[in-house]
Amino acid sequence: MRTGVDGRAKDHSDRLPAEDSGPGPSSGEDRLLRRILDVLPSLETAAGEGIPRLILGPGDDAAALAWPGGGALLLTTDASEEGVHFDRRLHPPRAIGRRAVAAAVSDIAAMGGRPAGTLISLVAPPSEETAAVRISEAAAERARELGAPLVGGNITAGKRLGLHVTVAGTSPAEAPLLRRSGAKPGDALFVTGKLGGAALGLSLLRGRREGATASFTPEEDALVARHLDPAPRLEAGAALAGAAHAGMDISDGLALDLHRLAAASGVGALVEASRVPLAGPGARGLDAALFGGEDYELLLAGPQTRVRAVAAAAEIPVFPVGRVTGVGEGVRLRRAKGPTEPLPPRGWDSWTAARWPPEAR
Amino acid sequence: MRTGVDGRAKDHSDRLPAEDSGPGPSSGEDRLLRRILDVLPSLETAAGEGIPRLILGPGDDAAALAWPGGGALLLTTDASEEGVHFDRRLHPPRAIGRRAVAAAVSDIAAMGGRPAGTLISLVAPPSEETAAVRISEAAAERARELGAPLVGGNITAGKRLGLHVTVAGTSPAEAPLLRRSGAKPGDALFVTGKLGGAALGLSLLRGRREGATASFTPEEDALVARHLDPAPRLEAGAALAGAAHAGMDISDGLALDLHRLAAASGVGALVEASRVPLAGPGARGLDAALFGGEDYELLLAGPQTRVRAVAAAAEIPVFPVGRVTGVGEGVRLRRAKGPTEPLPPRGWDSWTAARWPPEAR
Repeated sequence: MRTGVDGRAKDHSDRLPAEDSGPGPSSGEDRLLRRILDVLPSLETAAGEGIPRLILGPGDDAAALAWPGGGALLLTTDASEEGVHFDRRLHPPRAIGRRAVAAAVSDIAAMGGRPAGTLISLVAPPSEETAAVRISEAAAERARELGAPLVGGNITAGKRLGLHVTVAGTSPAEAPLLRRSGAKPGDALFVTGKLGGAALGLSLLRGRREGATASFTPEEDALVARHLDPAPRLEAGAALAGAAHAGMDISDGLALDLHRLAAASGVGALVEASRVPLAGPGARGLDAALFGGEDYELLLAGPQTRVRAVAAAAEIPVFPVGRVTGVGEGVRLRRAKGPTEPLPPRGWDSWTAARWPPEAR
Repeated sequence: MRTGVDGRAKDHSDRLPAEDSGPGPSSGEDRLLRRILDVLPSLETAAGEGIPRLILGPGDDAAALAWPGGGALLLTTDASEEGVHFDRRLHPPRAIGRRAVAAAVSDIAAMGGRPAGTLISLVAPPSEETAAVRISEAAAERARELGAPLVGGNITAGKRLGLHVTVAGTSPAEAPLLRRSGAKPGDALFVTGKLGGAALGLSLLRGRREGATASFTPEEDALVARHLDPAPRLEAGAALAGAAHAGMDISDGLALDLHRLAAASGVGALVEASRVPLAGPGARGLDAALFGGEDYELLLAGPQTRVRAVAAAAEIPVFPVGRVTGVGEGVRLRRAKGPTEPLPPRGWDSWTAARWPPEAR
């Protein structure tokens, strides 16, 4: 889930991030999720004959239940709301459906799992029936492409369009789950591709709407496609789940998601700005990579040599972007050869987006 | 799903309901779902090693995937939108959370399955954080009570409150699924409890808000509780899945849901009004039972003697309300000893509800 937080993190309650790392993963969504997690009943489930046992509850990219016959069932849900996650003037129905499904499937990739089936719950004003049909069609098409065919759904009337996507996935019995917790000081940090493209693409779409440009260059088209039609890293997740100590998908920007991984693992982290693969040049490109979100590349922490070797064998690109440090060091960024600075836990946050007018997102 | 339709019903395309049964299950939701089903890619999934095979796709109460290790995974999703499914002036956050979870779990009951885990996707305006926490807490509490603990979720900002609930359930390898299709002419029709209580309870709540009454009698309190805190019939579904030929939950009223079951099975049906167990007296009580919805009792079709015997052995109440007829006879109602009349496919429909002002629902 793009808004997943680091759970109640019982293991790490004595190892909170140091003051200088900023307030921890503290987007509006994270803060509210923490309030909710605090009031939930505990999750020690009564395992019984034929009843799946909980392996991993709220707080990671997907929940995991041990299936009695072997393997794990992965479950994740994600939302896409009009005026928050999409704007009808920028996003055609096809993009709304395809993006929402890709974002949810990315949570399965982030666990190292394989998607198996998709459910959608669609909200649409009665006047928007045609858009609802197109969105559903696009969602089903993308789900099918990603190996998670649409198996069911629900539709209800509402004031604005909204698409909620649930994906069920599997993880074979012998395969380890890729969790947010488990990163160790000394681990290398990797990402699986260029970052910032989706945010730069959105910016281009907004510019075109405001008349800044009539048409895009092929390079710009590629950035727009990163935003409108993202690709979850299923192969990377499945191949690297056993090699990495921890991982997640980068849905809300490297900065905010790295804060989440660090908090879940009880560690600090250092990002070398010069090593982050950027979709766009300069300070603007770095900003988009750190704080833009919606790239859906994976963020991995693990032993440098082993992760590189497994990635090479599977022909999966990985880019080292920094290293895991002790929790006391916080989450930091080195912009050049000089000293490091705190990397703020800032990124894509629906709580912030919803306060803006729709055109701001 | 409360809005489930009868799928593409390939088996029955040559046996459409007769004209006199009305236009078939034709709520706004059904009509739109049919448009969507028409454009979806086909669902013949490539079964592969470790990949669940689809048993039952869109169109029943829940989807079913054959789990490689044995048994079936059931998946269903349901939505509850402010101004459509609930009204903040009538429904406290606790009721919003509990109702939405019970409605989704009811779809698992309707398949004869056992719930295993729940995901929620919550939409809330940033100004409604406290309500969001209370709704989540209530949803988690109800999920736990029903054996489907909350294992994950998502929260996002939006203009109005909305709660989307996905429930994963299981069906043991040896257990048959309770489907909407399969009813045969000559089968008896049963319901598992009194109908109309939820609609009458909602009506009482509205009356109190308008100052019609200051307090409720114990009988009225029970009706209000049927609306605010419904109970899915998990035991009934599990016990009777093997005895009945077809079944579903009554989420949108006996009339509309019976039309759906009849269409999925390619049959007609006759309801004897005098035999429908009513939560309230008189014509108003019958109207609430036929067209009110949200009762979440089960509707079953099967051999009279066998269903009664299995129900008695499991100590589950069942009430015969009519019988399955040939498709040419349509879906009909006998109000007294006299002639029968068409039973219109009318019931709870978000498409209608959303056109009303919020206080009308």
